[in-house]
Amino acid sequence: MINYPNGKKSAGSIALKSAANRGMSLEDDLNVTNDYYLQLKKANIHKKPTPVQIVHVDYPKRTAAKITEAYFKVPSTTDYNGVYRGRAIDFEAKECSSKTSFPFSSIHPHQIEHLDSVLYHGAIAFLIVRFNCFDETYLVEARKIINQYRNSNRRSLPYSWFQKEGYLIPFKLNPPVDYLKIVDAIHFKGDVL
Amino acid sequence: MINYPNGKKSAGSIALKSAANRGMSLEDDLNVTNDYYLQLKKANIHKKPTPVQIVHVDYPKRTAAKITEAYFKVPSTTDYNGVYRGRAIDFEAKECSSKTSFPFSSIHPHQIEHLDSVLYHGAIAFLIVRFNCFDETYLVEARKIINQYRNSNRRSLPYSWFQKEGYLIPFKLNPPVDYLKIVDAIHFKGDVL
Repeated sequence: MINYPNGKKSAGSIALKSAANRGMSLEDDLNVTNDYYLQLKKANIHKKPTPVQIVHVDYPKRTAAKITEAYFKVPSTTDYNGVYRGRAIDFEAKECSSKTSFPFSSIHPHQIEHLDSVLYHGAIAFLIVRFNCFDETYLVEARKIINQYRNSNRRSLPYSWFQKEGYLIPFKLNPPVDYLKIVDAIHFKGDVL
Repeated sequence: MINYPNGKKSAGSIALKSAANRGMSLEDDLNVTNDYYLQLKKANIHKKPTPVQIVHVDYPKRTAAKITEAYFKVPSTTDYNGVYRGRAIDFEAKECSSKTSFPFSSIHPHQIEHLDSVLYHGAIAFLIVRFNCFDETYLVEARKIINQYRNSNRRSLPYSWFQKEGYLIPFKLNPPVDYLKIVDAIHFKGDVL
């Protein structure tokens, strides 16, 4: 790739690159993927709205109510959930800008408790982590993340751990993050659809 | 009950009344109920945050980010979902102020499509409707509501329909809306916990 003096990258090279360089965030890719699953009647999985504490709302005449003061709340659950092949699906998705490790601080303690709870009740739960530098997206089973989170002496998980313990989600054009392929391999092995 | 000249009701009488007169909304009651289920490890079911389109955020120094312009969005899914006994749970909850009927306009077409979709994928889906005048809360299976919504010539469902086709959720102190009792009776009949 040619780096131009103004710091911009050549437009020509972008077309050859995948997720990270398409300028699509993991969230964008997951939205496209979940919409694809929904339209094809493969699954019904949605991102939850961002939790917001609404403090003040204006109700101007003849126009829509306008929220004029609100604050972001710490999420008490994960961002994504839904239903697939009769099972409840629950997961959190995170981008990681480090080349070497994924910091535990990226996940709220509440979210770890939540994943533990939905596993207990029978959901299929996992974490999707994208290492932006390598443009690699991994699915890791929630149980493994919870164990590491609670028992590791480190404050992060090395990239090599994801290579060993996670499942690399192959990049496709459509859907961009076909994570249910991995879910099928783990949970519905041998089942015929 | 004694109505005082200032329009306030005697405090003494309030203690004897249930949901509507306790000043608790259906949403409050469901939050308490879901929290009860969560703490007792019976189920993991949450209300989704209100969907909001954030237009402008201020980032003042040394204080939390403040959303200064945002608008309410039409929900594309239901308000509540989670996992119970290995199954995905999905429902919408509505209060009704009419004594005679529940207007279909209370439910967005998107939400009917959503309920249909989650049923297809294997979730347990329903509607919880509270008739405030009678202080009665009904659980109605999603399939029945969808059929009525699509095939009825009326623009509302009569109260008598809920009495016949729905399941009255008995009022309790804790949890106030024990709807999983009804789910057990419909979906897990004869199972031993």
